[in-house]
Amino acid sequence: MTWLSTGETAAPGDLVALASTKTNYFIFRLEEGGKFETHRGIIRHDDLIGTKWGSEVVSHKGSSFYMLQPGIYEILSNTKRNTQIMYPKDIGFILMKMNIAPGTTIIEAGTGSGGLTQILALMVGKEGHVYSYERREEMTNLARKNVQKLGLQDQVTFYNRSIEDGFEQKNVDAVFLDLPNPYDYVQQVRDALIPGGQFGSLLPTTNQIVKLLLEMRRMDFEFVDVVELMLRFYQAEAEKFRPVDRMVAHTGYLVFGRPILRAVCEEEQP
Amino acid sequence: MTWLSTGETAAPGDLVALASTKTNYFIFRLEEGGKFETHRGIIRHDDLIGTKWGSEVVSHKGSSFYMLQPGIYEILSNTKRNTQIMYPKDIGFILMKMNIAPGTTIIEAGTGSGGLTQILALMVGKEGHVYSYERREEMTNLARKNVQKLGLQDQVTFYNRSIEDGFEQKNVDAVFLDLPNPYDYVQQVRDALIPGGQFGSLLPTTNQIVKLLLEMRRMDFEFVDVVELMLRFYQAEAEKFRPVDRMVAHTGYLVFGRPILRAVCEEEQP
Amino acid sequence: MTWLSTGETAAPGDLVALASTKTNYFIFRLEEGGKFETHRGIIRHDDLIGTKWGSEVVSHKGSSFYMLQPGIYEILSNTKRNTQIMYPKDIGFILMKMNIAPGTTIIEAGTGSGGLTQILALMVGKEGHVYSYERREEMTNLARKNVQKLGLQDQVTFYNRSIEDGFEQKNVDAVFLDLPNPYDYVQQVRDALIPGGQFGSLLPTTNQIVKLLLEMRRMDFEFVDVVELMLRFYQAEAEKFRPVDRMVAHTGYLVFGRPILRAVCEEEQP
Amino acid sequence: MTWLSTGETAAPGDLVALASTKTNYFIFRLEEGGKFETHRGIIRHDDLIGTKWGSEVVSHKGSSFYMLQPGIYEILSNTKRNTQIMYPKDIGFILMKMNIAPGTTIIEAGTGSGGLTQILALMVGKEGHVYSYERREEMTNLARKNVQKLGLQDQVTFYNRSIEDGFEQKNVDAVFLDLPNPYDYVQQVRDALIPGGQFGSLLPTTNQIVKLLLEMRRMDFEFVDVVELMLRFYQAEAEKFRPVDRMVAHTGYLVFGRPILRAVCEEEQP
Repeated sequence: MTWLSTGETAAPGDLVALASTKTNYFIFRLEEGGKFETHRGIIRHDDLIGTKWGSEVVSHKGSSFYMLQPGIYEILSNTKRNTQIMYPKDIGFILMKMNIAPGTTIIEAGTGSGGLTQILALMVGKEGHVYSYERREEMTNLARKNVQKLGLQDQVTFYNRSIEDGFEQKNVDAVFLDLPNPYDYVQQVRDALIPGGQFGSLLPTTNQIVKLLLEMRRMDFEFVDVVELMLRFYQAEAEKFRPVDRMVAHTGYLVFGRPILRAVCEEEQP
Repeated sequence: MTWLSTGETAAPGDLVALASTKTNYFIFRLEEGGKFETHRGIIRHDDLIGTKWGSEVVSHKGSSFYMLQPGIYEILSNTKRNTQIMYPKDIGFILMKMNIAPGTTIIEAGTGSGGLTQILALMVGKEGHVYSYERREEMTNLARKNVQKLGLQDQVTFYNRSIEDGFEQKNVDAVFLDLPNPYDYVQQVRDALIPGGQFGSLLPTTNQIVKLLLEMRRMDFEFVDVVELMLRFYQAEAEKFRPVDRMVAHTGYLVFGRPILRAVCEEEQP
Repeated sequence: MTWLSTGETAAPGDLVALASTKTNYFIFRLEEGGKFETHRGIIRHDDLIGTKWGSEVVSHKGSSFYMLQPGIYEILSNTKRNTQIMYPKDIGFILMKMNIAPGTTIIEAGTGSGGLTQILALMVGKEGHVYSYERREEMTNLARKNVQKLGLQDQVTFYNRSIEDGFEQKNVDAVFLDLPNPYDYVQQVRDALIPGGQFGSLLPTTNQIVKLLLEMRRMDFEFVDVVELMLRFYQAEAEKFRPVDRMVAHTGYLVFGRPILRAVCEEEQP
Repeated sequence: MTWLSTGETAAPGDLVALASTKTNYFIFRLEEGGKFETHRGIIRHDDLIGTKWGSEVVSHKGSSFYMLQPGIYEILSNTKRNTQIMYPKDIGFILMKMNIAPGTTIIEAGTGSGGLTQILALMVGKEGHVYSYERREEMTNLARKNVQKLGLQDQVTFYNRSIEDGFEQKNVDAVFLDLPNPYDYVQQVRDALIPGGQFGSLLPTTNQIVKLLLEMRRMDFEFVDVVELMLRFYQAEAEKFRPVDRMVAHTGYLVFGRPILRAVCEEEQP
């Protein structure tokens, strides 16, 4: 059971996003005999099965919906969460900077609601793997459910424990820490990462960044970059093209670096 | 011959990034007996083979380099180009918004130097495919070389022709136009895209955006979004943490939309 | 009756800002026997008279306020308005770019609620003057009241009429148009401005900018600049220093230019 | 001898900006018999005297210039400097936030090249005053010359000494510190400011901000705001309206606050 249908029409088992407005989605899997119910009316799954993707469909109350294949954006905005999850703008940049692609092995901690976990699992594909650590059991359970909903459970191993004693993996390609105190685990990151591998973290305050930079320097990380991404939406109106009035001003600063192995100067050797 | 080595040490055939500074990379494949030569000295491939990734290595002139596995970022900054290529910040967001992942089929036009082509080919993996259209033969040739260098040629089909008469594919998941006049090809996009599929484009001027929005509205695209991403780098110094002095102010506006099939109202039927 | 008191303590006739929180101000003039009343309690003016500026004062219900001399920021956020008024970030930049200072003569249209009018009147001082045009009578009346409240009425002449037939002034130093269609009045601006003088406008959409740029070019304006200012607030917490979560993404694009007199080439002369 | 001429034509003693391009200005005062010489040719002052402002004038070599009255923008970009001077975007906002207007008394330290000093002197007018402190004698001399060139010397008193022992003024309306270590002088600021008055500072790093915020809290400053302003220039072309490619990413963070006098609770009194 994969994410995207490959047919032109929706089939039983397909993941469907029913959009009532541009930003309001309902995401579920089609089942024969199933029913989709909201206060805006009922739509029978059997009426969707065999319908072309992208079609406007109408509930028994006359409300109009579009039947779409859910993309990453819709998945993220629909993820059940107990915690703030990461924004697509930041995740997209992390993929580029940390080289997350089919075949990549990556550790993440903490799992949280599994927003990032889903995207990582999708991107590393069957040849790659995600190892996801989290201390709070209820979070791991929620994340596991979110990942299963997308049929990506084979790409992820969840660990329900602290990372203080280190990770169980060695030589992974990448480690991402989404924790308030990543500076306390830089040694553990170094032990799990392949030398020259990709380390990343997202932090909201400059104070945290300063602490992390100090630890990364102490532990021989190079190629250190700190960035922030600002995303501005525009009114999609041809006659009144302009930015929208308000925007998210800050999600976090992204920090990246790679542990290196320094050459030992000969004269320093005994 | 894949992108990333899976071993802890470099082996013949591995793609290597030798970094002399944080932003200066030399990317090549290791061959037994090979030689890497710059004005900063010579390094024999045989001295790199068997060396741990992330190691500092020293040329015969005493210059220091780090041997890294090249990530997407380094690949992009090292892509041979005759044209401006897209920025990682924009590509990362496109992946998220257009749902580019293992298994996706996507058309892009024009190919240009193949910067975006490489990343798309990497991301869609073996189950997906990239169809890349370009009128200028020398650009197609350059892009093909860039894709081959990464061992991703099986994921891409290049077409060396105009798109005025349409694309050869039907029902692809996504179409991306990196052309100055995408508004002239919206019908062709609609014909190639699966209904509800993902259309995207990158344009530098507001005048182009306005024209494209008009065409997209006329051709029944919905879920239209226009955004811009601003990327700001920070000085990675713990004691003087601050943004760097200058930044890229503009690469382009990103436009996204999905062609939909409107319900036909019963009273409108004959 | 001027804006700022010159004494260390508040005196009758002084303009006072009573702040209950960082962004909630009550602005009024002190009168002997006067009373300030809110749902948070009553404060007698006589208790404020003779009190040092910057003092915390407490209402009869125990609510705490700070008694401050109102600055431009507080004045603007407290201006009675029927329309959107300009933001301090934009006004500050306009002052710099258009050279608004003591002695400047400036025309503005339309007056609106008089937010900009107040600041211009303050800045040009007694040696300068503001000529403010507005078609809607109720707006002129509101703006006049706002200006009088600050004791700046001698610096402003209000005109309650359309600018289609031009302005009554010649050779003013600057003209600012805060109208949706400034491109319809560029000839009128040219007629009123001293050659080489400063023209400015604020417009929300790119479509308006494009129209205005065309007119300015046609009418021999040079030194044309278009800018936008993004203002980001930070959490003022030493231990958690970071941008606030949300911000204003757009107020408008600012356009500036100066009408010039081209040299007549000798061969073109009869 | 004031800044701006009041006539339509240039007269002896007027300050003139000869612009060869949009960003290249020569600023000088007209004198009978004077000569303006560059590698682009000579223009005699006598040919400018009596010429209308905004006119295109041509050197003996055929190079074209526009004769303008210099605005604040041109003055700042033309200020002789040994140090980085503040940007108009930041100065404009400081005026708004700190209520700098005709009649304001303000202390600034350090003077530097006098870029900010000039604008403050201009804005406070004859009823206000600027007290400008600087340790380095050569900077004070340079700033004094810059201020004199604009005829604003009566509005400024320069002090050539450290501010460690405090300022000579009491009850000024505003204090602005343009120093790397403002956090060392918060007591001195408090002693010189009228209670409730305006304090401001510009600092490039977050580390400095954090230190300053701690001191301001310790010394009972309220209404504390930290902001940054990003200024983006657009290509002023109607057919290709878009942001320019690159921009200044950071000049500094602006910090503002007002010292207050807390109410003494009755039960705390003896």
